[in-house]
Amino acid sequence: QGILERLDAGEIVIGDGGFVFALEKRGYVKAGPWTPEATVEHPEAVRQLHREFLRAGSNVLQTFTFYASEDKLENRGNYVAEKISCQKVNEAACDIAREVANEGDALVAGGVSQTPSYLSCKDKAEVKAAFRKQLDVFMKKNVDFLIAEYFEHVEEAVWAVEVLKESGKPVAATMCIGPEGDMHGVPPGQCAVQLVKAGASIVGVNCHFDPDTSLETVKLMKEGLQAAKLKAHLMSQPLAYHTPDCGKQGFIDLPEFPFGLEPRIVTRWDIQKYARKAYDLGIRYIGGCCGFEPYHVRAIAEELGPERGFLPEASEKHGSWGNSLSMHTKPWVRARARKEYWENLKPASGRPYCPSMSKPDGWGVTKGARELMQQKEATSEQQLKELFQKRKF
Amino acid sequence: QGILERLDAGEIVIGDGGFVFALEKRGYVKAGPWTPEATVEHPEAVRQLHREFLRAGSNVLQTFTFYASEDKLENRGNYVAEKISCQKVNEAACDIAREVANEGDALVAGGVSQTPSYLSCKDKAEVKAAFRKQLDVFMKKNVDFLIAEYFEHVEEAVWAVEVLKESGKPVAATMCIGPEGDMHGVPPGQCAVQLVKAGASIVGVNCHFDPDTSLETVKLMKEGLQAAKLKAHLMSQPLAYHTPDCGKQGFIDLPEFPFGLEPRIVTRWDIQKYARKAYDLGIRYIGGCCGFEPYHVRAIAEELGPERGFLPEASEKHGSWGNSLSMHTKPWVRARARKEYWENLKPASGRPYCPSMSKPDGWGVTKGARELMQQKEATSEQQLKELFQKRKF
Amino acid sequence: QGILERLDAGEIVIGDGGFVFALEKRGYVKAGPWTPEATVEHPEAVRQLHREFLRAGSNVLQTFTFYASEDKLENRGNYVAEKISCQKVNEAACDIAREVANEGDALVAGGVSQTPSYLSCKDKAEVKAAFRKQLDVFMKKNVDFLIAEYFEHVEEAVWAVEVLKESGKPVAATMCIGPEGDMHGVPPGQCAVQLVKAGASIVGVNCHFDPDTSLETVKLMKEGLQAAKLKAHLMSQPLAYHTPDCGKQGFIDLPEFPFGLEPRIVTRWDIQKYARKAYDLGIRYIGGCCGFEPYHVRAIAEELGPERGFLPEASEKHGSWGNSLSMHTKPWVRARARKEYWENLKPASGRPYCPSMSKPDGWGVTKGARELMQQKEATSEQQLKELFQKRKF
Amino acid sequence: QGILERLDAGEIVIGDGGFVFALEKRGYVKAGPWTPEATVEHPEAVRQLHREFLRAGSNVLQTFTFYASEDKLENRGNYVAEKISCQKVNEAACDIAREVANEGDALVAGGVSQTPSYLSCKDKAEVKAAFRKQLDVFMKKNVDFLIAEYFEHVEEAVWAVEVLKESGKPVAATMCIGPEGDMHGVPPGQCAVQLVKAGASIVGVNCHFDPDTSLETVKLMKEGLQAAKLKAHLMSQPLAYHTPDCGKQGFIDLPEFPFGLEPRIVTRWDIQKYARKAYDLGIRYIGGCCGFEPYHVRAIAEELGPERGFLPEASEKHGSWGNSLSMHTKPWVRARARKEYWENLKPASGRPYCPSMSKPDGWGVTKGARELMQQKEATSEQQLKELFQKRKF
Repeated sequence: QGILERLDAGEIVIGDGGFVFALEKRGYVKAGPWTPEATVEHPEAVRQLHREFLRAGSNVLQTFTFYASEDKLENRGNYVAEKISCQKVNEAACDIAREVANEGDALVAGGVSQTPSYLSCKDKAEVKAAFRKQLDVFMKKNVDFLIAEYFEHVEEAVWAVEVLKESGKPVAATMCIGPEGDMHGVPPGQCAVQLVKAGASIVGVNCHFDPDTSLETVKLMKEGLQAAKLKAHLMSQPLAYHTPDCGKQGFIDLPEFPFGLEPRIVTRWDIQKYARKAYDLGIRYIGGCCGFEPYHVRAIAEELGPERGFLPEASEKHGSWGNSLSMHTKPWVRARARKEYWENLKPASGRPYCPSMSKPDGWGVTKGARELMQQKEATSEQQLKELFQKRKF
Repeated sequence: QGILERLDAGEIVIGDGGFVFALEKRGYVKAGPWTPEATVEHPEAVRQLHREFLRAGSNVLQTFTFYASEDKLENRGNYVAEKISCQKVNEAACDIAREVANEGDALVAGGVSQTPSYLSCKDKAEVKAAFRKQLDVFMKKNVDFLIAEYFEHVEEAVWAVEVLKESGKPVAATMCIGPEGDMHGVPPGQCAVQLVKAGASIVGVNCHFDPDTSLETVKLMKEGLQAAKLKAHLMSQPLAYHTPDCGKQGFIDLPEFPFGLEPRIVTRWDIQKYARKAYDLGIRYIGGCCGFEPYHVRAIAEELGPERGFLPEASEKHGSWGNSLSMHTKPWVRARARKEYWENLKPASGRPYCPSMSKPDGWGVTKGARELMQQKEATSEQQLKELFQKRKF
Repeated sequence: QGILERLDAGEIVIGDGGFVFALEKRGYVKAGPWTPEATVEHPEAVRQLHREFLRAGSNVLQTFTFYASEDKLENRGNYVAEKISCQKVNEAACDIAREVANEGDALVAGGVSQTPSYLSCKDKAEVKAAFRKQLDVFMKKNVDFLIAEYFEHVEEAVWAVEVLKESGKPVAATMCIGPEGDMHGVPPGQCAVQLVKAGASIVGVNCHFDPDTSLETVKLMKEGLQAAKLKAHLMSQPLAYHTPDCGKQGFIDLPEFPFGLEPRIVTRWDIQKYARKAYDLGIRYIGGCCGFEPYHVRAIAEELGPERGFLPEASEKHGSWGNSLSMHTKPWVRARARKEYWENLKPASGRPYCPSMSKPDGWGVTKGARELMQQKEATSEQQLKELFQKRKF
Repeated sequence: QGILERLDAGEIVIGDGGFVFALEKRGYVKAGPWTPEATVEHPEAVRQLHREFLRAGSNVLQTFTFYASEDKLENRGNYVAEKISCQKVNEAACDIAREVANEGDALVAGGVSQTPSYLSCKDKAEVKAAFRKQLDVFMKKNVDFLIAEYFEHVEEAVWAVEVLKESGKPVAATMCIGPEGDMHGVPPGQCAVQLVKAGASIVGVNCHFDPDTSLETVKLMKEGLQAAKLKAHLMSQPLAYHTPDCGKQGFIDLPEFPFGLEPRIVTRWDIQKYARKAYDLGIRYIGGCCGFEPYHVRAIAEELGPERGFLPEASEKHGSWGNSLSMHTKPWVRARARKEYWENLKPASGRPYCPSMSKPDGWGVTKGARELMQQKEATSEQQLKELFQKRKF
């Protein structure tokens, strides 16, 4: 059954987790460029991660094609051997995802994300051409549906949806925005409306913000759609990092990004709360993004086990709410084998010399600078430098 | 070259990271029993983790035989399908480790760890028989050397070393103790002396404590050996969790163990500090235990790159000290592409409602109870229950 | 010169600090009732606190008549000896304030605050009569001007201003509200407009919120007045506690109120930042409320010393920005004798087992309950009990 | 009854709190010099603080003669008007203390503290002469007993005790040391033995460390005395600041000293725990030092009310364990009117951008430097500068 059949029937669809962060820690992706050449260089590593998500309960395997547009791969070409073409990266990603999807009953979704071309002010035709190049591969490899994800500007997301829609396949669209809206100031409700009008059947958010903040944003999207009398399925794929302190641009601007985020990693119990809250809000496509490891995806599947009537394969190796501790030799560890314990635990950081929140970096600090940045002109290298030099770090 | 040739020549040997915690998060190991039946059930998952460690710089691949003694596997039999024998688990572990080791130039180490038989007061002969059963497999599969690790009681560790020594292969021995010593009160210096006298060529600590605390313990071992005019190589494989607040029994007694440890995970920069400190202390076998992911091992290899003259393969996907951020579009993120930044960062937890330290659980709270526990009699189930009922949770 | 002459001339007027909290810690006021019978029982203690504020730079001494309306004193009669009448308490307060004011050149302000009569739904006439009773004393004792402070409902504050205005003396009015507005949902801007229309020449906020939050509220008041083309002087007298985590009702609902607020106490440097920010916002009557000790008031006077051209008497015993440490025997303590040090210090709590923020208690948690409370009916004892029983504490 | 009669009879004697910190906040003492010229300049302020401590339950009023030796007053002469002689400061202190003591039944204790002469290597005779000058005043004014307090070196403390002992009055001696011992490395047990042998009838600690740490030190003193078969009464007067993170020199070396200590201030409940623990340890002279305000002293008196059979006068304005909140209008505030609530509260700092612990400044960081400092030679100005320049701040 296709993605829309499942969602229309009221099923809960569980997404997968974050590839670039997980594979960075495993040694296959470089932070900074974040490009997915591993699909060609180390397919076994990509395959294994897909398998772990499948086993944890994912109903959708996204092709590992994040930042795999030709302009991005070229832009970051110093990291990628010349011989690996954009096409090869995308094809390999499709093949790996399909191979693992066939080991279970998961769907394969081809994914596109924001492009450097858009940021460097190239025109609509050029940006759309980049998406179309990836779409050609997805069609050739016959993915089950398409996702436009990780867009900071709804304008570009709409262009992506328009291209993907040409295929005739169902399209989902998620933006990496918070409750304040996109980088041009378009609020979440309007973003959702534009995406649905452009052809997306599923809309929501991914990345940049923690589960709680992301659900706030989806709520605003839902309200926007209701006000516009539009219908669409809702989707959320947040970070697995606590980011109560970040600004409009999300976790990128936190001083800990990307190599000091460890103390912010959410627990499986945090994810169970997220899954419940997402469900109660009416979201039926529930997954994760950066930081989400297989055990976080399993936590979604376990929390919603009662509604779905089954548990994922990986739950064979997990006791619900810590009950696998019930045989521990120490009585006080056995005492942790219960829901109340883990639900109420306030986990310590073990870092008494560190604060609990950070001030985000960035132009956000001065309103004028933020406005500048929101105009495309501000992204010229010279302007960046000038703004940069005025700041105290 | 064998392990002792390398160490005798002054080389730095990098160990691997923690299997049970990493594979628990990937969905292949059950917390509580922590047994390694995945070697038979899901060899591809074990193989992939070995590969990641190898790629990150590990010079030794330990067979995934933690808690793979027959008594432990039986004891936790409800989790393990009947058909998987102790022998099969151990054999598969050897085969997988060797297969991956051959992809590089790593050594394979066969490992044994503490047994339930010891804790349940069985006699020396019986405990030794359990180790010998695993050793038979290691000899048949011809591992390169042997490690007795994760012992809370030096008495049992000595028995293990004595058995492993029968093989004629080099033996390393590490205990999961802190500066206060083993569970019977034997201080680290004396533990080291006993282990070397029993035949260990390499001694040190693994698990239960964070890098700083573990290095304190190894320092005490070193001083003990010097006082006794004994020579041995030093080894450390600590947790990748900050545990400044734990008691004698280490992280097991922290309220966050094992499902709420996320905020305590160390960063790659913490590990670089650890690697440097370990090196300065004279330790030449430097690795990790629970919580250590491939990128943590890579951090050891990068920190000691100048001394070793080369970087591991996975450094292709990592810029030293964050320099891969130097092409980021945002100037304030580019400003993070430098050593001073990451060295001095005090990462926030994003958890303002949580404390920074916890009080450990456990009998440790009352001295009488701890003493009771240190006597073997205290581990009877009835006594545990009585002690347990007296405590307020 | 009177208060309005000073403010009209552009002078900065420094208020005093909080009496009930300071005298509670000194042993003369009971937390809970918070009534000021100390003016009769222990005039020397009240006099000394006035003197300390005067010495620290206060230009206004408020009579210690907080909660000194007859209904409040009777209501809390079990704490107050029968023989002390409302009139005596108020008269003694005026005498003490005037005596100390004459030691310098401070003004005396007679103050009224919210009444239990209003909360228990008595009518306008009755509430006004209570204020008039206090006003009679203020007129007899000839205070310099009048302040209506600590009002949660603008309706009652307007009644107070109307009564005080009958006297012909200048009237200031402050509410204990945050940016969300009063307990009936009237936003700060509208509160300010209503107060000025009722006759207040000075408007602002006091108590319930920390300096930063309070300044946000005053900013909203300022904008409201501008929109309505009304003119008034602005005033702020916030808490000396950090309360970033409190809800609409302010610090009352924080779990630490009132006996565990110590870790939240602001430093003198926090106050210097507050004074500067208040000044920049156009506020010219700058003081404090609960938690403000004499040294906090001195910090206002020192920060604004350059603008005012003089320092208060108590600065004889204080080096600007810690410069009195420059003779310390330890070089690292001498290194603290500079502005940059104290400005940038992030002071530790010394409490690693405590969080940095709390969740406020109260009905605020559920919207329905808050709405109930905002209707006067909700304050019936029976309803309180029922709501209370439904909550988990 | 004299101090020894009371203690010999098993009575609990409650000390007073800290004068220099309380009066600094009230505007009468300058941080840095910390000298007590306020006894002459502002006797009413000193008198009022004595009264508050008396009212809170203090059985002893210490003359405000801290750092009132002639050399200290001269040394810090730029802060003190020439006309105020050492003798006048000491005499006024005695008069004020006696005047207030007579309002209740408190004893007056004349106090001496460490001298600059000792630190600048002057000889025993000179140092003793400084103490004798103060003693002459105490004898003329007929104080009830004598206290040698705030000594970092037991050698100087012994000299002080020897001088005070000449008077024939009972002598108490407290050092400002932690469990590591005095600045020359003499452990607490030996310090206690030397002080008792020199003639002290009461020994213990004051200042520099928080209640918990101070009680550890007194415990070591007690054990030292027991081992030496000596008898003496025990006394503790710790800080009212949490200092789990400070080094050998106590809170002076914390980065927050002295103007950013607010988040560390202990609550009244912390003090109740301290009083109970001190009592259980056998300490019968229980008071406080820097940071102790009248309400902290009252907390000692309330905690030990059951043992003593009465409460202090100031308890008229305090409900035991928060019971004065039982009439609050909000049910969730009423819910705080109970012992369990306040006993278990983990108060938040309201400072999410601050850590919970600090690294102490100081030479302590390098062992060599600390050793240098412990030799008197290191205090030469030149050496200080050199050491200072080597440090990174």
